Amino acid sequence: MAYETIRYEAEGPILTITLNRPDKLNAYTAQMGAELADAFHRADEDDAIRAVILTGEGRGFCAGADISAGAGSFDTTSGEGAKNFGGGRATGGRGADFIGAMFNCRKATIAAFNGAAVGVGITLALPTDIKIASSAARFGFVFARRGLVPEAGSAWFLPRLVGLSQALRWCLTGNVFDAAEALRGGLVSEVVAPEELLPRARAIAAEIAENTAPVSIALTRQMLWRFGSAEQPFDLLKVDGKFAMDLGATGDVKEGVSAFLEKRPPSFPGRVSDGMPAGYPWWSEAS
Amino acid sequence: MAYETIRYEAEGPILTITLNRPDKLNAYTAQMGAELADAFHRADEDDAIRAVILTGEGRGFCAGADISAGAGSFDTTSGEGAKNFGGGRATGGRGADFIGAMFNCRKATIAAFNGAAVGVGITLALPTDIKIASSAARFGFVFARRGLVPEAGSAWFLPRLVGLSQALRWCLTGNVFDAAEALRGGLVSEVVAPEELLPRARAIAAEIAENTAPVSIALTRQMLWRFGSAEQPFDLLKVDGKFAMDLGATGDVKEGVSAFLEKRPPSFPGRVSDGMPAGYPWWSEAS
Amino acid sequence: MAYETIRYEAEGPILTITLNRPDKLNAYTAQMGAELADAFHRADEDDAIRAVILTGEGRGFCAGADISAGAGSFDTTSGEGAKNFGGGRATGGRGADFIGAMFNCRKATIAAFNGAAVGVGITLALPTDIKIASSAARFGFVFARRGLVPEAGSAWFLPRLVGLSQALRWCLTGNVFDAAEALRGGLVSEVVAPEELLPRARAIAAEIAENTAPVSIALTRQMLWRFGSAEQPFDLLKVDGKFAMDLGATGDVKEGVSAFLEKRPPSFPGRVSDGMPAGYPWWSEAS
Repeated sequence: MAYETIRYEAEGPILTITLNRPDKLNAYTAQMGAELADAFHRADEDDAIRAVILTGEGRGFCAGADISAGAGSFDTTSGEGAKNFGGGRATGGRGADFIGAMFNCRKATIAAFNGAAVGVGITLALPTDIKIASSAARFGFVFARRGLVPEAGSAWFLPRLVGLSQALRWCLTGNVFDAAEALRGGLVSEVVAPEELLPRARAIAAEIAENTAPVSIALTRQMLWRFGSAEQPFDLLKVDGKFAMDLGATGDVKEGVSAFLEKRPPSFPGRVSDGMPAGYPWWSEAS
Repeated sequence: MAYETIRYEAEGPILTITLNRPDKLNAYTAQMGAELADAFHRADEDDAIRAVILTGEGRGFCAGADISAGAGSFDTTSGEGAKNFGGGRATGGRGADFIGAMFNCRKATIAAFNGAAVGVGITLALPTDIKIASSAARFGFVFARRGLVPEAGSAWFLPRLVGLSQALRWCLTGNVFDAAEALRGGLVSEVVAPEELLPRARAIAAEIAENTAPVSIALTRQMLWRFGSAEQPFDLLKVDGKFAMDLGATGDVKEGVSAFLEKRPPSFPGRVSDGMPAGYPWWSEAS
Repeated sequence: MAYETIRYEAEGPILTITLNRPDKLNAYTAQMGAELADAFHRADEDDAIRAVILTGEGRGFCAGADISAGAGSFDTTSGEGAKNFGGGRATGGRGADFIGAMFNCRKATIAAFNGAAVGVGITLALPTDIKIASSAARFGFVFARRGLVPEAGSAWFLPRLVGLSQALRWCLTGNVFDAAEALRGGLVSEVVAPEELLPRARAIAAEIAENTAPVSIALTRQMLWRFGSAEQPFDLLKVDGKFAMDLGATGDVKEGVSAFLEKRPPSFPGRVSDGMPAGYPWWSEAS
């Protein structure tokens, strides 16, 4: 797939995906959703990539859905709405698909918010693992101000990430807030100067790429996202006990322990393309 | 139903429900529980009301269960206990009913803690969406100090709102704490001077009433409270995708987008009494 | 069972369990796991004990798994790995068993982190109710740096305690962090000077022992840990309503209310060994 609304740029183990409609503040369209899904699937399957940074070109991160068609922009029964949001929302297919692609990706994912992230412009990035912001970023769960509801699974993602109290407050008022409030509320874990945003995101990505095992990262993010919301810990204890036992005999663990004892950087042999342990995936739903 | 233990006062789109037994620091009784349930049902069905403020008359918010009968106050097998707590607790009916009425209410709900909120005096307000406090407020999950356990669903509500670590610490020690600790721990999102409490609560209510669509608020709070605790996001993706698509063709969304583009306040036509979309409610349990 | 890797020291109502392999920074072995499980079962059954403090002897809390056997330390198919981790992980038995013993314990549990708590050295303490640290403590969810995954149910416990964002960040980078970061991130609720650590832990334990009812504590911690992760509050409302009603007629509640009204310390008659109410346990799984 050739991308028209995003850029896909790998540099060593770090992939940067950039929302790239800067004249529209990177406003979301169905095409962008499909391209994001494709890009995350591609990153998932490429062993050379260890971490994915998601950011935006220009002044905005993503200003939300493209409403340049006016009042009918969300009307999928005809016109612009169908072009922008048809298919995806109706079928749980393309449009929503990028959420599944990010959620199931076996690479660490980092959102770097460079500017306004509003509506679907913030919800599309919620499934990333680590979120940092430029001091120029702004955020808004503005759905109730447009007659809409939080979408893209955000009623599940947001309370997990920031707690239910904060999620309710942001979504019921629908107000737009700055990076400092996003930091206080736990939506991002760091705020840096605009020119330091991508260097800082790359430093986090590099810390992961240089020090951790690919198979460990793939399993760890699924275990946290999926069992972190389970009703009880007992199903997890069966899964993590088996993984701990099976991984213990692998070259990854031998390398990890040796490198630690020898005080040197590790060089893990395991790859996600052919090295995921038996028992992964442990879930069965289509997504 | 005529209310004897609460006041029900609507002013434009804002309803204020005031616990009103000030000579008893608004101590809870079964009658108060039944009146609260009725009041929230009434607010739910009245399209003129957009947000509900819950506060207390006088020095206290609610000092907890009425224990003026002494040691037997909680003994529902006879005497005062039956009068104060009979029926409700036994059947999951009246007494607990106000929790269901608040939880399922289609209006934004705001607790404004003016004074002591202790025992059931704090747990009865946990299902509200937004919580603010006067600097004079105090809080206590004192159940273990009375030989009781957290009630009114608070073992579910409190960890969602403040995290499990904080919930355990407050409930296992049973200590009484001030508004500053409530703010640090995430139980309230703002602390203001006593004379600013109701004006601030009304300002938040007005922000919601003036800027958001009634149907959006009704759906959003249910989506966050209910899917925010789901094990996985995939069931939600079906629900929010359908709502996003169906709402997109409504007058509410057309008005919301138009008002935004024209930089004017919105005037949403949709009402919760007859405008909830197909697929609501998406749950089936009795409550 | 005679303990070789831990100490078990009761003083009045407070039990202190001390990880006791100080020459190895209290590194974890399968024997330590089995002794911990036994100790928590013993505490659970002893009515004289009201609160349990878990700490470490010497400079460390627990430096993680014992890797003195080198690269094969985690290889349970042979050699040291089998000695250190065999059985437990394979069967969900002994090694994991201490998690179940802590989770189901009917006493308040407090972790007092005196030094490094890394790998299983931190995950083994996650099921405690209250966590405080010395300013000398350090923490690390270093699994991905060793080719391993978070274990001992920590992919469930950690997000509940600190939120998913913080859990992802610590587990995906695998970095080691200090007590101040643990406090900011919500992993511990207090940081004190090293010499104040055990006195402070004992003060919290004493506050619980002197003011609360044993049966209330046993029920409260299970209600919070188990229903705090439920998808909805309605099952809990049946359980807590029944407990509130049944407990209301007990000597514990009469004593709790009387002591409060008479402004004196309570002396609760109820014991967990024979005083747990009907309906406990309300769960059925083996653990």
